[in-house]
Amino acid sequence: MSQIDLSDYRPVFYPQSLAVIGASDSPIKFGGRFLQITLSYGFKGKVYPVNPKGGTIQGLKAYTSVESIPDPVDFAVITVPAPFVLEAIRGCVEKGVKGAEILSAGFKEAGPEGEALEKEVVKAAREGGLRLVGPNCFGIHTPEVGLTLLPGTDFSTTHGPVGFFSQSGGGTCDVVYMALGRNIYFSVVISYGNACDIGAAEMLRYFEADPNTKIVGAYIEGVDDGRAFFEALKSCASKKPVVILKGGLSEQGYRGTLGHTGSMAGSKEAWNAAIKSAGAVSAYDQRDLVECLMAFNCLPGFTGGGAGIMAGGGARVVDGLDAASEYGFPVPVLDDETTEKIQAYLPPAGGRSGNPVDLANPGIIPATINPIMELLAERDDIDFLVMYQMLFYFLNVQKKLPPEFKGERGNPHVHAELTAKAEEIRTKSGKPLAMVLVDIASDPEHGEVELGRIEARYHYTNQGVPCFDTGYQAFSVLKRVADYYTRRQTKK
Amino acid sequence: MSQIDLSDYRPVFYPQSLAVIGASDSPIKFGGRFLQITLSYGFKGKVYPVNPKGGTIQGLKAYTSVESIPDPVDFAVITVPAPFVLEAIRGCVEKGVKGAEILSAGFKEAGPEGEALEKEVVKAAREGGLRLVGPNCFGIHTPEVGLTLLPGTDFSTTHGPVGFFSQSGGGTCDVVYMALGRNIYFSVVISYGNACDIGAAEMLRYFEADPNTKIVGAYIEGVDDGRAFFEALKSCASKKPVVILKGGLSEQGYRGTLGHTGSMAGSKEAWNAAIKSAGAVSAYDQRDLVECLMAFNCLPGFTGGGAGIMAGGGARVVDGLDAASEYGFPVPVLDDETTEKIQAYLPPAGGRSGNPVDLANPGIIPATINPIMELLAERDDIDFLVMYQMLFYFLNVQKKLPPEFKGERGNPHVHAELTAKAEEIRTKSGKPLAMVLVDIASDPEHGEVELGRIEARYHYTNQGVPCFDTGYQAFSVLKRVADYYTRRQTKK
Repeated sequence: MSQIDLSDYRPVFYPQSLAVIGASDSPIKFGGRFLQITLSYGFKGKVYPVNPKGGTIQGLKAYTSVESIPDPVDFAVITVPAPFVLEAIRGCVEKGVKGAEILSAGFKEAGPEGEALEKEVVKAAREGGLRLVGPNCFGIHTPEVGLTLLPGTDFSTTHGPVGFFSQSGGGTCDVVYMALGRNIYFSVVISYGNACDIGAAEMLRYFEADPNTKIVGAYIEGVDDGRAFFEALKSCASKKPVVILKGGLSEQGYRGTLGHTGSMAGSKEAWNAAIKSAGAVSAYDQRDLVECLMAFNCLPGFTGGGAGIMAGGGARVVDGLDAASEYGFPVPVLDDETTEKIQAYLPPAGGRSGNPVDLANPGIIPATINPIMELLAERDDIDFLVMYQMLFYFLNVQKKLPPEFKGERGNPHVHAELTAKAEEIRTKSGKPLAMVLVDIASDPEHGEVELGRIEARYHYTNQGVPCFDTGYQAFSVLKRVADYYTRRQTKK
Repeated sequence: MSQIDLSDYRPVFYPQSLAVIGASDSPIKFGGRFLQITLSYGFKGKVYPVNPKGGTIQGLKAYTSVESIPDPVDFAVITVPAPFVLEAIRGCVEKGVKGAEILSAGFKEAGPEGEALEKEVVKAAREGGLRLVGPNCFGIHTPEVGLTLLPGTDFSTTHGPVGFFSQSGGGTCDVVYMALGRNIYFSVVISYGNACDIGAAEMLRYFEADPNTKIVGAYIEGVDDGRAFFEALKSCASKKPVVILKGGLSEQGYRGTLGHTGSMAGSKEAWNAAIKSAGAVSAYDQRDLVECLMAFNCLPGFTGGGAGIMAGGGARVVDGLDAASEYGFPVPVLDDETTEKIQAYLPPAGGRSGNPVDLANPGIIPATINPIMELLAERDDIDFLVMYQMLFYFLNVQKKLPPEFKGERGNPHVHAELTAKAEEIRTKSGKPLAMVLVDIASDPEHGEVELGRIEARYHYTNQGVPCFDTGYQAFSVLKRVADYYTRRQTKK
């Protein structure tokens, strides 16, 4: 496998200068809109609008062609319709541009004519040393340099440890938006659509080599060279967690990927076996993919073991036991001494010591919960903690209290006291905490309560505590994280 | 099996008069709080506070004992601690009360002493013809008469076709709150805890006989008489859908149910097989249970068949195909004529006819969507419609528009036009619509967008269109509804 030279990718993924080919003043035209959001999101380098008419576009001097830009250009965004793309590519080659994303559709996915056009485009780019992203894609999002995707006007400008690549543009935006509230930040996000040049195997090699990327996620519909892909996957997964959502795993789904990105999807069995054998992690849909990325981000090195569960109410206690069991996590029975010590912190009615501990009270009360977390974590057979919060009831009562009794919504300081203790325990013993914040609020009238849950999730994930809506999903994701790191430990 | 006489249950489930035993003026004491929420929720019959001190409690004349109440009393709510319950029960018998709920804990679930006390209580009640709910429960919620549970201060006052029984109090509240935004309304909800008298088998017989109940849901940890339960389940499920969430199906989970309600849980395999063989539906957790109830409520008689899918963006098209396949639903390929007709309604770029139809545009545009729904529904091999909405993008753009371009949030009239057409199609052809409203919004900043999604779900479920967060969950639930009605058709 060819060695990656990260500096080759610098002008493509972290451009200092950007030509928007097809820019205009109209915010409803594709190129005009792209330029607008590039400026409003805050691209940190130079931006050169390109339009045959020249003049001034959105307050910037426009150029009639890429070649006529006087300064060096790292990267071009091509927004013109498919029939004009080849000419734009030739201009970029002429200019010495290093990379270009072709947002336009109408290539391989559109049939034989489009496929032929795509081949010509690739040929021209290869001959000129121009790297291509797309066509039929949303392109590259690099928060560090302020590069965003068309619908991503309000993506976070914070960068972080997750690298993501995808064949779907819309799906990429979904993932980035779902990541926002879970404190998942990205190094480079790339939607490469038809993958005429840069594709899955290369992105795996890039992210493997990139020191800024610690976790890799991907949505894949198909790959051209299965062997190269799985070799790259195996190599990358041996160093960093790689979470793959494979679309089109059904006979019917294949029909969808063929029309979407012209991809051969391959059989479900073959893919699942290959992902597993490569040491990577499978996700079953977008939401699950995002929750896996969140968990890897919050729990580096997590290898599972016995669960210490805190829940509120008998049904949640049972849910915790059933869900942990479903994914093979023991929930160790406590010794009498620990049971007694825990009981002393519980309310006289309703609370019940043991594992799970039934906290009973919907309040998030650090004076009760913090010592219980410590007691659970002191046991050798408990390796991590899971807490179900009765947050709905707490917030629903809070919002009805008269102002003088009312804390701030969700009582952020209470959540903060709890995460401070969780962090202390983790530093001391290496035992992390995960949270189940059940989505009880369902109607418009309880919108404020749901917002409080979203705020709590934002707080916890920011403090390294992954949050899930249900117990089953929590243990399902935790299992995959634990399996990944256990495998890596075993292989050492 | 004994025949049910509904009139026997009238004073228990639909009481006209209520004694609150252990009432007080203190809103932080159990009985005081119960009285307070009974009055604020709006109990429609007479309320008699009972407290040895007498006097006036919360503005009502209080009685020193149940026996001293001059008028007939249908139902008593017992809020006093366990050691005082037997005396209260004897008082109720003396007075000729027909039913009582014992909210207090400290009985069978608490060990041998509690179990002995529970037996005495049951004996006293049986001898006096008093029916018991509980102990260690939240009791009965009957919206029609304004009877609610302790944490259910803001449950809906609308009654409806779903009967629900549960061994868990907190779990019952979760279900009722989750039901609110999905337009699931209840005939009778009962949390019976230890089930010392009224239990699962009897509730199944009651709901089977009750003409107000069309759908039955249950959370069960264990049953005393398995044979009676499964006979009742089979009989009820032959007439009405019954959705069961069985807690404690794991070896570990059993530990939880034993401590929670003193229940023997039974093996996972045995339960699942028995539920299936009885013709009932299994749910895997609370959220799933609620979504099954929603789907049965929206789709009476639904027997599945071919799916006509509308989605936004390629990844959702693939998700629709994969998810439908996972649960065995064909997504028929369209004939050329239909394909062409649909294509004519789609935007020139991005949209793609076929099945799934890729609507591409995030806007909820009835002029595009309504004729496409009609064209899909005209095909003989398409039996129902599923739509993925790109609601997040629509609402996220909407909220940033200047006021003059801004519709009302979520554009309710647009959703309404869409459901009007869906209803027309359903009336004409019997082909219903289901919706996937993906929960993309994740962070506090997009709280308004999430609220728009909650509002949309509230609208759709009110119009008979079930809504799900993900495609897999949608088809998973639809499959169980289809299997239920298909089985009933086959058995006829």
